[in-house]
Amino acid sequence: MPFLSEIPCMVTKSPLFSAVLANTMLSTVPGISGAGQSPEKTLLTPVLDAELISRGSISSMPVKPNTPTGCPTPASITRSMMELTGLHPLFINAGLVHPPTVPCMDVYGEPGGDPRFTDAVPGAEELFRRGSAIGIFLGRVSDLLVLGECVPGGTTTAMCVLRGLGYRARVSSSYADNPVRMKEEVWEMVSRRLDADPKTGPLDVVRVCGDPMIALSAGIFSTYPGALILAGGTQMLAVAAVAKGLGLPVPGIVTTCYVRDDASANFAGLAGEIGAEAYYVDPGFGDLGHSGLARYCIGEVKEGMGAGGAMFLAALLGHSPEAIRQKIFEFVRFYD
Amino acid sequence: MPFLSEIPCMVTKSPLFSAVLANTMLSTVPGISGAGQSPEKTLLTPVLDAELISRGSISSMPVKPNTPTGCPTPASITRSMMELTGLHPLFINAGLVHPPTVPCMDVYGEPGGDPRFTDAVPGAEELFRRGSAIGIFLGRVSDLLVLGECVPGGTTTAMCVLRGLGYRARVSSSYADNPVRMKEEVWEMVSRRLDADPKTGPLDVVRVCGDPMIALSAGIFSTYPGALILAGGTQMLAVAAVAKGLGLPVPGIVTTCYVRDDASANFAGLAGEIGAEAYYVDPGFGDLGHSGLARYCIGEVKEGMGAGGAMFLAALLGHSPEAIRQKIFEFVRFYD
Repeated sequence: MPFLSEIPCMVTKSPLFSAVLANTMLSTVPGISGAGQSPEKTLLTPVLDAELISRGSISSMPVKPNTPTGCPTPASITRSMMELTGLHPLFINAGLVHPPTVPCMDVYGEPGGDPRFTDAVPGAEELFRRGSAIGIFLGRVSDLLVLGECVPGGTTTAMCVLRGLGYRARVSSSYADNPVRMKEEVWEMVSRRLDADPKTGPLDVVRVCGDPMIALSAGIFSTYPGALILAGGTQMLAVAAVAKGLGLPVPGIVTTCYVRDDASANFAGLAGEIGAEAYYVDPGFGDLGHSGLARYCIGEVKEGMGAGGAMFLAALLGHSPEAIRQKIFEFVRFYD
Repeated sequence: MPFLSEIPCMVTKSPLFSAVLANTMLSTVPGISGAGQSPEKTLLTPVLDAELISRGSISSMPVKPNTPTGCPTPASITRSMMELTGLHPLFINAGLVHPPTVPCMDVYGEPGGDPRFTDAVPGAEELFRRGSAIGIFLGRVSDLLVLGECVPGGTTTAMCVLRGLGYRARVSSSYADNPVRMKEEVWEMVSRRLDADPKTGPLDVVRVCGDPMIALSAGIFSTYPGALILAGGTQMLAVAAVAKGLGLPVPGIVTTCYVRDDASANFAGLAGEIGAEAYYVDPGFGDLGHSGLARYCIGEVKEGMGAGGAMFLAALLGHSPEAIRQKIFEFVRFYD
């Protein structure tokens, strides 16, 4: 497969890479999320990732930007691409437990609750509204927005939202061995709550069982006047599905071939059902000579922090696949 | 006097209006600040002002955008100019007691302490550093930055910083009757703390007796690559003085003629001493037929929330003095 599945027809004079950060309390349930050294520590992952991408290293805690199994985090890939392109990322705090260590656009939201027991995003409507204010602002300062996310546990909330909207969704995971049974157990409890809720629209589904990133990102998309492309896997499909449910046009989406090839999920089929144009990046991590990156090919990590979108943007700005691969290799090698 | 004291030699393709919000606990000392219905409520003023400017009205609380004496707030002027120019403002939260009701760039700072008794900004160095990250980002998305502020009680912290840096500063006030004696009492206590502190540089002075806005704004200025003009009165002189003290170039500053003409302060003399090029806006509020605005001419309010800078920017973008005055009149009349 080529580096990009398709060369998009986009011309940009002022591109912006941005990522929405949020927590869902689901990530603290042991076994749901692989995005952190322990269930509790998954709550910190968006903060540490944003620090790495903004500053080039993590100094607020004594940790390496590697997963518990020793793979480079997707944030490392995103950081590499910021260095290669010279872009300066904008992080957007949709609702975090821990305060970020770098400046973020903040909407003063709350972390998402556990959708098994409570409305996960009581302020979904207001988050959408604040997102729409951000979309207007970002439209004044950019003509292309690549919008990623970092929400540990977020594939499960995305699955609930997609199913709540009527899609037969199976979602991906940062684990090589997708904890499908646990996700189905969450869905069983969530579906009962959805049935009991007098919901009337897509943002009600997000309120019951989503996470703050989904509501905020949909709001940003609703007003952004330029080209916006969602950067992520099945989590971003939930955003596209909410946009569609609200009667908006459907945003395009870019992710890695590792998400597309995840047989435990059905990314491509879902994207087609939603009507989201999908782009895939194949960075060929299998033959870079780095064992941690190679494990992306057997299904670990796969995507996150807009890594696929960051590589896509670098390619769009004229950097060759070889330069992109080389840059990533050099960056992650430092943390072996 | 003409509308602008001088036509600046600036060409801009992507201007940005931004304002830094912060609290200092000094504003809760009765009599220090007129920017709120009560000393405690001054803490809310930056939040309400940002809401007015972003949304065009205040819905989170049942208040009018008028001062306790019935003058339109400077935020009303700034809002009018955003409507006239179509610009979308960016607010930056440097340290507030109450969470904003609109999206803000946030650096996760703390409100400033009372400099009579404690280090006012223990994180001054880190705020400067986070400001420098914001300056880089804003440089990617704009070529001209008009940077205002809203810090109730901030003229007193500015006076302390200016004097701590060696200037014989007298500062302005939102009161027609500047509470000079109270400010001098604060300074007496602060100067003893400054003498006792083993300070080594300008950011140490800010740490001892400034407010979060001063540290953050200096940081933004330190890296912003385009043209940056500070929008405010004596508070912004403190930022310019810190920049000069750090060996940086000295930013230009724009304010209203009402600040310049305040005999209880010495704005023009201080600007000259610091080496900050000063621009003055005379919106001629005396003959607009609005009693609240007319009271600006006898020394009430005078400036705030970058109001002078917002009018300056509107003029720079080609709007006539008449259109600017008319727009302000129409907006504030609504709240009579």
